[in-house]
Amino acid sequence: MKERIIELISNKEYKELKKLLNEMNESDISEILDEMSDEDAAFIFRLLEKDVSADVFSRMETSTQEKLIENLRDNEIKEVTSQLFVDDAVDLISEMPAILVKRILQNTDASKRKYINELLKYPEDSAGSIMTIEFVDLHENMSVKDAFERIRKVGKNKETIYTCYVIDDKRKLVGVTTVKDLLLCDPEKLVGDIMETSVITINTHVDKEEVAQMFDKYDFLAMPVVDMENRLVGIITIDDAMDVMSEEANEDFEIMAAITPSENSYFNTSVFEHTKNRIIWLLVLMLSATITGTIITHYQNAFSSLPILVAFIPMLMDTGGNCGAQSSTLIIRGLATGEIELKDILKCWFKEIRIALMVGVCLAVVNGIRIFIQYQNPILAMVIGITLMFTVMISKSLGCILPMAAKKLNLDPAIMASPFITTIVDACSILIYFNIAVIAFGI
Amino acid sequence: MKERIIELISNKEYKELKKLLNEMNESDISEILDEMSDEDAAFIFRLLEKDVSADVFSRMETSTQEKLIENLRDNEIKEVTSQLFVDDAVDLISEMPAILVKRILQNTDASKRKYINELLKYPEDSAGSIMTIEFVDLHENMSVKDAFERIRKVGKNKETIYTCYVIDDKRKLVGVTTVKDLLLCDPEKLVGDIMETSVITINTHVDKEEVAQMFDKYDFLAMPVVDMENRLVGIITIDDAMDVMSEEANEDFEIMAAITPSENSYFNTSVFEHTKNRIIWLLVLMLSATITGTIITHYQNAFSSLPILVAFIPMLMDTGGNCGAQSSTLIIRGLATGEIELKDILKCWFKEIRIALMVGVCLAVVNGIRIFIQYQNPILAMVIGITLMFTVMISKSLGCILPMAAKKLNLDPAIMASPFITTIVDACSILIYFNIAVIAFGI
Repeated sequence: MKERIIELISNKEYKELKKLLNEMNESDISEILDEMSDEDAAFIFRLLEKDVSADVFSRMETSTQEKLIENLRDNEIKEVTSQLFVDDAVDLISEMPAILVKRILQNTDASKRKYINELLKYPEDSAGSIMTIEFVDLHENMSVKDAFERIRKVGKNKETIYTCYVIDDKRKLVGVTTVKDLLLCDPEKLVGDIMETSVITINTHVDKEEVAQMFDKYDFLAMPVVDMENRLVGIITIDDAMDVMSEEANEDFEIMAAITPSENSYFNTSVFEHTKNRIIWLLVLMLSATITGTIITHYQNAFSSLPILVAFIPMLMDTGGNCGAQSSTLIIRGLATGEIELKDILKCWFKEIRIALMVGVCLAVVNGIRIFIQYQNPILAMVIGITLMFTVMISKSLGCILPMAAKKLNLDPAIMASPFITTIVDACSILIYFNIAVIAFGI
Repeated sequence: MKERIIELISNKEYKELKKLLNEMNESDISEILDEMSDEDAAFIFRLLEKDVSADVFSRMETSTQEKLIENLRDNEIKEVTSQLFVDDAVDLISEMPAILVKRILQNTDASKRKYINELLKYPEDSAGSIMTIEFVDLHENMSVKDAFERIRKVGKNKETIYTCYVIDDKRKLVGVTTVKDLLLCDPEKLVGDIMETSVITINTHVDKEEVAQMFDKYDFLAMPVVDMENRLVGIITIDDAMDVMSEEANEDFEIMAAITPSENSYFNTSVFEHTKNRIIWLLVLMLSATITGTIITHYQNAFSSLPILVAFIPMLMDTGGNCGAQSSTLIIRGLATGEIELKDILKCWFKEIRIALMVGVCLAVVNGIRIFIQYQNPILAMVIGITLMFTVMISKSLGCILPMAAKKLNLDPAIMASPFITTIVDACSILIYFNIAVIAFGI
């Protein structure tokens, strides 16, 4: 498709190009613009219908948006901002450099600018920061017929019309209803009679990760956001919740792999940027690992007189790391999806301890048999077996407790993932290993 | 809430209980039933209104569903299946033991059973297996008014009415339209005139992960599923796509932490089950790690004459593991979200190699300075530095290439994550380390 568009541009077949763009989906157009040269992107963008262009714009990558705005004239920016939903405008502004923000706001009409500024006040990552104010509000004494009239009148520029919010004169939320319910009932009925009154709401300050969890749980298409006085201030739609969900999963994957998370995609991040995102944790973990090294040098006599001891270091380290990764991953995920809560800490730990016992015995036995066959050395098999037991117990305990401790301290539990735990478990297991070996072999 | 319900049951205040349940959301009820005793759960379930009970049922955990069905009478099962959407019924049946499946199908009416059996034929993980057949179909020569009449007539039992599908006499999909478009236009217009004709469709055999990606990209509320002849066979709704997305993320997290993925939640998985899910990979990786141990024993002379060499083993192993984890995580995620494709392999590798060079130099320099200060041994600093460079290059290359190779072989790329790569990188880096050391120190 991209090739065809470039061909049409170079052949100056603009009419054909316009026709093609008209038939394409907005997401597909934005994806192609992300890959185009700046001039071509601006050229194509200008060919788009007005109502399509804002939609395309809101789906482009941040770097493309930035370049495009630099290339657009003031009146063109005005056209885009007038069509953008307020939540998309807020997204845009919070990611642009200051100089462009100024230009964007100058070319936004006053009432929308006011709303944008209000939404910008909500803390990053809060429900308020991802909500939109474009929703349909109804009154309970409207008839269903009146409700449809209102939907027809105000619906065009709303992000969703399918869930309608019933408010009283003080803008307090008293109920919700859906277009489905309205369509399937008698048009003479009152909204107040058919609306659902036990409404599940989101407070403006709730973390957006929790918002995504609520959408996953309740399967709503939109949820109302209220302030402390239960006044309706906005709504969050499921597509935004879905974006949050995939962003949060991405972020967790990156943090758990000791990467500073970034908003940009893999290919749109430069080599230097990638290096910067990865080097800090690598340095921290590398220097921490020297503690384990220092411990080893303390037992120089032990492994000088029994060099075979060194051969088991990699196996002990890897097993500890893997056991810790298993537990911490499940706990971090459980915390992220809301299945595990802080109050479950003892329940989790008790579970992990029992799992650790079973896993530890199993690993120790298999390894013991292997060592006995390979070296005919029962004491060595015993030393490794006991060390394995301890290593598994410690790593699974840390994998359970550290993420929950991080959560308690309002840190991201994902920090306490495999790389971090491995570093601690390494030191512990090496210490236990050599101490047991020294006693068992009397060295 | 759970406490209040238990209290009402033990006080036999059933009227109050029924009122409370009526006000509660279906997801909240199902969550409480998941935590109740079998008898209480069955008792509460019987108190629910008919149209609510099927919804509650479809949201419960598999283990709760199983126990509940065992406790329900045939006519009660009949009531539930008559209310279940076909896609939820298919979910249920594919997860129940054979004996219950038989009982469920016996208590499902013939036409629904036919649809269920048809959907069960689609491969697991395909779009066909998660679609539903309850959608609203329109004809292009209907007026908008006629369309609303049809929606009112057939809408009640459809999973969504907001996206309507326009088909011809051969059930071929010719367009889509939304209730929003229908509401906002003149009721005398023809559906054919307002429908969108360039429809984005999903083929029945597409992988469900790809389906979730498409929803994430296009922000549709529902997407049509068509067979090879472009005949409309079903739709997928965004809530199901969201479920797929969170399931797939969970599965990837687990596989990447060397856990056999399971469908059940953390607390609903027994200690024995958890152990079983974790032990296989631990054993495989533990035994693989002995290869590294064997390599070390080959260099017994080297570290016997220069014991300090042993002290750097943990640092080299951890750094290699962490570098590999960073690259493999980004590549695995990129493949999962569709950003990275197999054809990008050289582009990715070239990027990773350049990152590896920068990261490697940085780590080698910092570590070199530390060693020089601590031991005043420039040769040692050099040996470690060169080994680090190689380790980083190898681990980042493997982290990039192995997941893509797995994808090429139709394996899950997530298998090629940190634990697996660590094991390989360990062996390589130890081999390089001792070889360089032997040459540099002439031992």
